[in-house]
Amino acid sequence: MSNNLKIGVIGAGRIGKIHSENIARFIPQAKLEGIADIMLSPEQEAWARGLGAQVVSKDPKDLLENPEIKALIICSSTDTHADFTIAAAKAGKHVFCEKPVDVSIPKVMSALEEVKKAGVKLQIGFNRRFDHNFARIREYTKSGAVGDVHIVRISSRDPAPPPVSYIKVSGGIFMDMMIHDFDMARFQAGSEITEVFTNGAVLVDPEIGRAGDVDTAVVTLKFANGAIGVIDNSRKAVYGYDQRVEVFGSKGAAQAENDAPNTVKLSNETAVIGEKPLYFFLERYKQAYVDEVVSFIDAVLNNKDTAVTGEDGLENMYAALAAGKSLKEGRPVKIEEVK
Amino acid sequence: MSNNLKIGVIGAGRIGKIHSENIARFIPQAKLEGIADIMLSPEQEAWARGLGAQVVSKDPKDLLENPEIKALIICSSTDTHADFTIAAAKAGKHVFCEKPVDVSIPKVMSALEEVKKAGVKLQIGFNRRFDHNFARIREYTKSGAVGDVHIVRISSRDPAPPPVSYIKVSGGIFMDMMIHDFDMARFQAGSEITEVFTNGAVLVDPEIGRAGDVDTAVVTLKFANGAIGVIDNSRKAVYGYDQRVEVFGSKGAAQAENDAPNTVKLSNETAVIGEKPLYFFLERYKQAYVDEVVSFIDAVLNNKDTAVTGEDGLENMYAALAAGKSLKEGRPVKIEEVK
Amino acid sequence: MSNNLKIGVIGAGRIGKIHSENIARFIPQAKLEGIADIMLSPEQEAWARGLGAQVVSKDPKDLLENPEIKALIICSSTDTHADFTIAAAKAGKHVFCEKPVDVSIPKVMSALEEVKKAGVKLQIGFNRRFDHNFARIREYTKSGAVGDVHIVRISSRDPAPPPVSYIKVSGGIFMDMMIHDFDMARFQAGSEITEVFTNGAVLVDPEIGRAGDVDTAVVTLKFANGAIGVIDNSRKAVYGYDQRVEVFGSKGAAQAENDAPNTVKLSNETAVIGEKPLYFFLERYKQAYVDEVVSFIDAVLNNKDTAVTGEDGLENMYAALAAGKSLKEGRPVKIEEVK
Amino acid sequence: MSNNLKIGVIGAGRIGKIHSENIARFIPQAKLEGIADIMLSPEQEAWARGLGAQVVSKDPKDLLENPEIKALIICSSTDTHADFTIAAAKAGKHVFCEKPVDVSIPKVMSALEEVKKAGVKLQIGFNRRFDHNFARIREYTKSGAVGDVHIVRISSRDPAPPPVSYIKVSGGIFMDMMIHDFDMARFQAGSEITEVFTNGAVLVDPEIGRAGDVDTAVVTLKFANGAIGVIDNSRKAVYGYDQRVEVFGSKGAAQAENDAPNTVKLSNETAVIGEKPLYFFLERYKQAYVDEVVSFIDAVLNNKDTAVTGEDGLENMYAALAAGKSLKEGRPVKIEEVK
Repeated sequence: MSNNLKIGVIGAGRIGKIHSENIARFIPQAKLEGIADIMLSPEQEAWARGLGAQVVSKDPKDLLENPEIKALIICSSTDTHADFTIAAAKAGKHVFCEKPVDVSIPKVMSALEEVKKAGVKLQIGFNRRFDHNFARIREYTKSGAVGDVHIVRISSRDPAPPPVSYIKVSGGIFMDMMIHDFDMARFQAGSEITEVFTNGAVLVDPEIGRAGDVDTAVVTLKFANGAIGVIDNSRKAVYGYDQRVEVFGSKGAAQAENDAPNTVKLSNETAVIGEKPLYFFLERYKQAYVDEVVSFIDAVLNNKDTAVTGEDGLENMYAALAAGKSLKEGRPVKIEEVK
Repeated sequence: MSNNLKIGVIGAGRIGKIHSENIARFIPQAKLEGIADIMLSPEQEAWARGLGAQVVSKDPKDLLENPEIKALIICSSTDTHADFTIAAAKAGKHVFCEKPVDVSIPKVMSALEEVKKAGVKLQIGFNRRFDHNFARIREYTKSGAVGDVHIVRISSRDPAPPPVSYIKVSGGIFMDMMIHDFDMARFQAGSEITEVFTNGAVLVDPEIGRAGDVDTAVVTLKFANGAIGVIDNSRKAVYGYDQRVEVFGSKGAAQAENDAPNTVKLSNETAVIGEKPLYFFLERYKQAYVDEVVSFIDAVLNNKDTAVTGEDGLENMYAALAAGKSLKEGRPVKIEEVK
Repeated sequence: MSNNLKIGVIGAGRIGKIHSENIARFIPQAKLEGIADIMLSPEQEAWARGLGAQVVSKDPKDLLENPEIKALIICSSTDTHADFTIAAAKAGKHVFCEKPVDVSIPKVMSALEEVKKAGVKLQIGFNRRFDHNFARIREYTKSGAVGDVHIVRISSRDPAPPPVSYIKVSGGIFMDMMIHDFDMARFQAGSEITEVFTNGAVLVDPEIGRAGDVDTAVVTLKFANGAIGVIDNSRKAVYGYDQRVEVFGSKGAAQAENDAPNTVKLSNETAVIGEKPLYFFLERYKQAYVDEVVSFIDAVLNNKDTAVTGEDGLENMYAALAAGKSLKEGRPVKIEEVK
Repeated sequence: MSNNLKIGVIGAGRIGKIHSENIARFIPQAKLEGIADIMLSPEQEAWARGLGAQVVSKDPKDLLENPEIKALIICSSTDTHADFTIAAAKAGKHVFCEKPVDVSIPKVMSALEEVKKAGVKLQIGFNRRFDHNFARIREYTKSGAVGDVHIVRISSRDPAPPPVSYIKVSGGIFMDMMIHDFDMARFQAGSEITEVFTNGAVLVDPEIGRAGDVDTAVVTLKFANGAIGVIDNSRKAVYGYDQRVEVFGSKGAAQAENDAPNTVKLSNETAVIGEKPLYFFLERYKQAYVDEVVSFIDAVLNNKDTAVTGEDGLENMYAALAAGKSLKEGRPVKIEEVK
């Protein structure tokens, strides 16, 4: 098992737990060597020990300075991502960083620079690229089955809005929610976004409007290769988590529907009744969370490019910034304008 | 328009009306020349004139003896089918006869003999062979896309039982209802039925049981080519007219789902809700009623074999008889036993 | 049959034939009294006579001046629509006019004025409102099943582009093709469009670009009620005629998929293979063409408002003009700007 | 964690590995205390240690006699199931036994008697009851949504036949393969099978016939509650693992389709192309293998009846024996005849 990559996880919150358990259970080519969280509770410590972690600490330095650990997964609060990324890079460790690297572009850039200098791998946690449905569409677009891409169409709607207190610090719908869809659009189009135009509205909850954000948005995109994209977001789809992608091209179209918990249909006097889509993002993207880390480990062990680079993270942020600016100014905004 | 086939329709009830209107509206290669019904009402007469029929009469002889009329569609009551078929054949007219030719095998045989002697075409009204779904499956089985046929699976369920008064004179579920499915099974298997075994029960309405019939039946079939078939019938599917066929073979399976009035799905807090299947057989098989007559006219005008022969009608009846016998005797019955 | 509405059809081209045959075959509450076409061929004359038309002429005046005829269906070339509408109104006849009434807004307005003055009914041929799928969605939005409308999403793609010669005189993709989708969007949103923004590209055929048009377009809409819309059009979907609508609201979403010629799925070693959508618009909207005229006749006979008014036609044109302007100027355009 | 159930697994083959890993990874209310396999290899030992098993041995007695272990999962070769069940019962341990308990009815009966005497829990590994699709159908039948059950229809087809060497010792298609479907039929009908009739054929591979078995079978069932069942089996569905269930009743029908690896559809010039069903049973029933053990543990910890009892196993065997007898004798066979 010399190929075994020893990994440390910084941050033992919801997403840190997911990654830690995935590594411990499903990823034999890695070993969960350590877990650090500055607020580590006794329960978290017991849980971490139960997963077999050797180093369990309140001090991330215990991971950063541990020579056994070759890669770090950064799941701490967003405002610490860039600093940990830089520290990890300086320590010569590969980095898988949850999105976003930071909310400030210059800070992201300096982190990326440090990563480059150190020659370590960096992957950003845009997990949806690894979703079984969306990855299958990408296979079709890559294989040429769809031909030249003409239109990318994404519907991405949450089952319920987060608390307004969260929305206030989230960076807004484009940076917090649609950023995943910008990544998906770029991934599927195989091209960079050059211009965005935003329609936004407060239709779900006026509190969201008072917090300075919108809860419903439709954004159109121009891509460098000439294709057109459109993303619609809503903070509240009462029927569950709605995640659909369609790529239309010169040779056909590939279209992913939602996942449901089962295939059963009940036919009765009234209707034919099927299941709603899976409600919760952790359930919907369960396997994608495993597969993105598997991909990262493969990149590290076999010296490949990571599947979602720091530049991807940066481009997605530019799109989000441009979308916000477009909404504010009521005009299409070129990506160049926000670079 | 020398190719135009002049047709007479005997019987102006529900199905006679369907055929008459279809010819008048949709089948330019034929002309609805005459309509006869021994109980012809003034309303029926007006309707017939409105369709352009030249001969409208209470006496079928007016059609049988009319030299302009080259083919007859027999839609009168079942007990008159054989006699009109014989009379038509003797008059040198081609015959499209609604199923069954008769409920008595010897009478059917003598009608078939007369048809043969006269050298006229005979088609029996097993319209489901012309259904867009089932015809598509047959294309797949014929083209070899399914390979050798191993299993034919048919679900055929009515939305509601007919009146018990009808059931008493209907010949029973096998002769009245499942006979369509025997025809479909033979059509899809491309082979004759050699043995049947019946499970039957009275689960819908005890009155049907008191009338000496069952309302729910599952019949398994052996085919001459080694394939196995299974048909299930119910007199009452609360969600509508359930008509599905599946052919499973060495290279794959072809499967037809029900038709629905529209494709809309409503997703709400409760479920994803779609439309029930079309409820009524005339709606479900609307186009099939046109296409079977088009096929008959083509056989007449271009001297081809008809798509559903008198022998098909006979074989379907043998299967129905054997199914009834199997139910009664609680054992598998070979078709030979009822021949 | 005193309720019988006698109708004249002006123009015996493709769409005039459809309406004439539909009235003759399927609409008992109307009678096809006359057909006029300035280029009437002997074949067209025979066809018109075959449908039972009493007046068959090269001169539309023969219909306009016929006191028996109470309503006219105008299917002549677009440049004559307004004049015939005006003439019909002056003659006191109700008008069903194929879209558009004219390509010039002032001409449309004067036609509408004349119609108003005459107090006759006017319906414009936006047939898709009568489509079984889209009408079902509208039922859901009207009944409140979808709640407040937040997003209307329309994909509308043709199987193949028309000849470039046609495109040159068509008024462009927005006036010729997307105008149907503007109507659908307004119909489903139950609100007027207030602003549009256009992304357009030449991705299908450079000749279309040289003709001054685009062949691929995504247009976002703002509605007066706060909802957001998005329409995507392509002149070429290789898999057939792609016509889908989705309405997303506070209580759920209603979504229509394409129609296919049958429901059969073939499962083999490679895949599960289903039918492509219906290819041709006349097949896809076959019943809608009947139902829009039935609705018109109902409005006339029972003195109701028509389902698609002249004002609807006008609003759709404003949207098309604004979409073209938005594409040209690269900015969102308010409908007011083009009024 | 006093509620934690310590479990031993006997047999470290394919299915023993599944259960062991599931307990170690997904079932926090249990602990994988020991693993025994009489042929234990060094690799298996390392794997068992890696899962945290304290006792890893070639001798099952090390589990049977370990006072810490409260329940045993028996995954050894079929001929040892009954003996281990008896030994476990005598040792006061609860038993989860893979199906079948034995191929000889008397041996099964004496094992069941021993279990009863010892007062321990016994669950048989009919995992499909825990499948997300089939469990959902059962919810519908239990809640009354389907009304009285009239017809249970099961298609169950393997992607490829096992080696003929296996078939020779398998007990035949009814005991080896269809036994799962007998269990499913009884589970869904909520009633016992009283009579079976079998159609069987050798259509996949003549070698299977030479081994004295059939590879294609359709079996109809009578249930004590009057319902009718039908099961079709094939050893080879080229498109993958085909597992569908439908329950039709007085108030409606519940129908489960196959699971596919993703929801993507590719529409191109030829067709609309979707994914084949999941190919492999371990993938198809992945979660069901977890859930059956969770259910067993719940029964043990909370002193409930197990979800699949020894009597269930016995009834399924009777059905399989009767189906074989029916095929051989060409007549319907009552379950009583084989008791």
